[in-house]
Amino acid sequence: MIDFNHANQTAVARLVASRPRLTGVATARDVIPDLDEDTLLHAGPPIEWERMSGPLRGALIGALLFEERATTPAAAEALLAEGAIRFSPCHHHAAVGPMAGVISPSMAVYVVDDVEHGHRTYSNLNEGYGKVLRYGAFAPDVLERLRFLNQRVGPAIGRALGVIEGGAGIDLRALLAEALHMGDEGHNRNKAGSLLFLRHLAPAIADQGGAEVGKILDFLGGNALAVLNPVMAACKAMADAAHGVEGSTLVTTMARNGTDFGIRVSGLGGSWFTGPAAIPDGLYFPGFSASDANRDIGDSTITETAGIGAFAMAASPAIVTFIGGHPEDALTATLEMYEITVAEHEHFTIPSLDFRGSPVGIDLQKVVELGVTPRVNTGIAHREAGVGQVGAGLVRPPIELFEEALVAWADRYLS
Amino acid sequence: MIDFNHANQTAVARLVASRPRLTGVATARDVIPDLDEDTLLHAGPPIEWERMSGPLRGALIGALLFEERATTPAAAEALLAEGAIRFSPCHHHAAVGPMAGVISPSMAVYVVDDVEHGHRTYSNLNEGYGKVLRYGAFAPDVLERLRFLNQRVGPAIGRALGVIEGGAGIDLRALLAEALHMGDEGHNRNKAGSLLFLRHLAPAIADQGGAEVGKILDFLGGNALAVLNPVMAACKAMADAAHGVEGSTLVTTMARNGTDFGIRVSGLGGSWFTGPAAIPDGLYFPGFSASDANRDIGDSTITETAGIGAFAMAASPAIVTFIGGHPEDALTATLEMYEITVAEHEHFTIPSLDFRGSPVGIDLQKVVELGVTPRVNTGIAHREAGVGQVGAGLVRPPIELFEEALVAWADRYLS
Repeated sequence: MIDFNHANQTAVARLVASRPRLTGVATARDVIPDLDEDTLLHAGPPIEWERMSGPLRGALIGALLFEERATTPAAAEALLAEGAIRFSPCHHHAAVGPMAGVISPSMAVYVVDDVEHGHRTYSNLNEGYGKVLRYGAFAPDVLERLRFLNQRVGPAIGRALGVIEGGAGIDLRALLAEALHMGDEGHNRNKAGSLLFLRHLAPAIADQGGAEVGKILDFLGGNALAVLNPVMAACKAMADAAHGVEGSTLVTTMARNGTDFGIRVSGLGGSWFTGPAAIPDGLYFPGFSASDANRDIGDSTITETAGIGAFAMAASPAIVTFIGGHPEDALTATLEMYEITVAEHEHFTIPSLDFRGSPVGIDLQKVVELGVTPRVNTGIAHREAGVGQVGAGLVRPPIELFEEALVAWADRYLS
Repeated sequence: MIDFNHANQTAVARLVASRPRLTGVATARDVIPDLDEDTLLHAGPPIEWERMSGPLRGALIGALLFEERATTPAAAEALLAEGAIRFSPCHHHAAVGPMAGVISPSMAVYVVDDVEHGHRTYSNLNEGYGKVLRYGAFAPDVLERLRFLNQRVGPAIGRALGVIEGGAGIDLRALLAEALHMGDEGHNRNKAGSLLFLRHLAPAIADQGGAEVGKILDFLGGNALAVLNPVMAACKAMADAAHGVEGSTLVTTMARNGTDFGIRVSGLGGSWFTGPAAIPDGLYFPGFSASDANRDIGDSTITETAGIGAFAMAASPAIVTFIGGHPEDALTATLEMYEITVAEHEHFTIPSLDFRGSPVGIDLQKVVELGVTPRVNTGIAHREAGVGQVGAGLVRPPIELFEEALVAWADRYLS
């Protein structure tokens, strides 16, 4: 009989040993595998246009406008609806993107190298708050910010990474470990991590000189989510390191496309197990309510998959100011996640729990046995294309995904 | 009979309402009141050369070398011992300095304006860790760093402050409030605050251009105590706002010169109450132990006086990694300080205590009645001149100071 405990310990040890470094910024088409000119990447499991939610459609429309494949939203929508464009999950291309997670061929992307295991992952650049492409907005100012990001911010970061630590770039695991001691949980709260990111980049960017260095540093410093995307790529590198271990019941992907929540499992290859994504429970910006909310969306659940985010919420009592609840709920969230994980992280520790390691390695079997699904912190997108973020909160995947995955695992390994 | 409760509420309300902004960097002789060419300022209550400890002597020697008043440490020491130089507490000049707290006429100093009450305070620039003047070191590399600080870093920050928010500078109360939600306590741990400081300064410094902007930003970003000195000047502004309220038993100064611990009281004018400073209890750097430690030194206790530092330690569980103890001790420290204070801070809140305001306004009477002295987080200096920092830890002032002060208060107000 298969020794799943041993398989899970092998998988989680690979996850914890993963050492992702941010080594560069490149144009998506030049580095992301299998990204041709007619492909757009998106968050979550595979989905066809007809089933896509408003914010994902909006972001795809914005991407075609950004790529100058269309000059009006209507023309972009027509192209998308008629099948001229192939849609593919970021996760099929070693990539992750927050919220809609749309990556188009011309976009600047972060390149992360797992120097422990040798594989590479990618994420797009973070646009900041409010009306942004990743929440489905595509107005002219959204596209203008995207161009500034791609033409100015991305290249400046790329040049800086070329000189930081002699070109070895930024140790994202060390950055995250430090941020968790500074009140971040690494998913919805990345305030400290983003400042640490700025601290790494600022000297080298300033040294580049030119009229826009101040503007670039101000953009980075003013965005408390600046480091989210490199962090997500780092978590993707960690999760990928744990994937493909024969017999393992470790969950190595959790991702949402705005319609479906999907998971993948270390010992079950590329199979997705999907079900309806929920509406997050959270705090809404003034003028918005739950009736405006889209279903849960984004690849950012890769943080929880890697043992941070809601799993490390005890490190982040201040997060309740924007996702709701009380600081004791943050503690409870982490304590509960120890029940469904197979290890405590060696490098990510939680000061208020006397530096206990964060709960890491979600075990399908424990989820099903206890009926406890992983907790997720998340942003909330408006359900219509073109609007943007309306709040932030908490959500869980449906337990059915885990039950289905466990059945598939039993079929493969126990029959 | 005097209504001391009312007086204390008046005093603490002024402290909490204080709104210090960092508005500039200037040369000490140009801005600090009564600082002539033959005066050196130091931390703590007044003290003569003969009673000074090693680190204070070392810093004064270094200051004369820096001022080029002497070319060798021996010559500097001779000048200091023979009475050619007047020694005066920073606190008598609206200033504060960490550890030895030595400020000499040529040094660059931060200028802080309390925009609520209209007064101004000062502090010197932070040199970073290890072998530094404020810990009594004066080797050539210490002086070289001081010159870099004074000639490059200070002026660059000053120019940046001239353009940040149209010259209104940096709101230090807001910065501190944010840092307390990011795991700082504002005294020994200023990691988040220093990054927030960098975030404010980096764009404007980068825009100045020139060969050294990267080096300056790297120096600031690499010093997790960079913001300590502006924070201390901010706390001094707050404490000064509470000083001079007729009948008040609020402690408005706590400061140590390496030999004596001294306090002053709102309703008792300029009188110091002093007694022997203790040796801190803490963690030592490799190769050092308590037998190397000097008695407690520095004006940085102004942070506890203003309701942060050890008083806000519950916000900073990670601090125990460098001052010793367990995260629960951090919680206990803050809870105990509520017993001897008269208010909870409106702007400085502690996430893990469900955003309860930090304990603020030390009441002499409560200290004496309960026998509970204020807690202080602190660095530990080597007891010999010229060595530097050897550790960090916890300390308390002797209760006798508070008893003496209470007798003086009773003499003045009850007789």
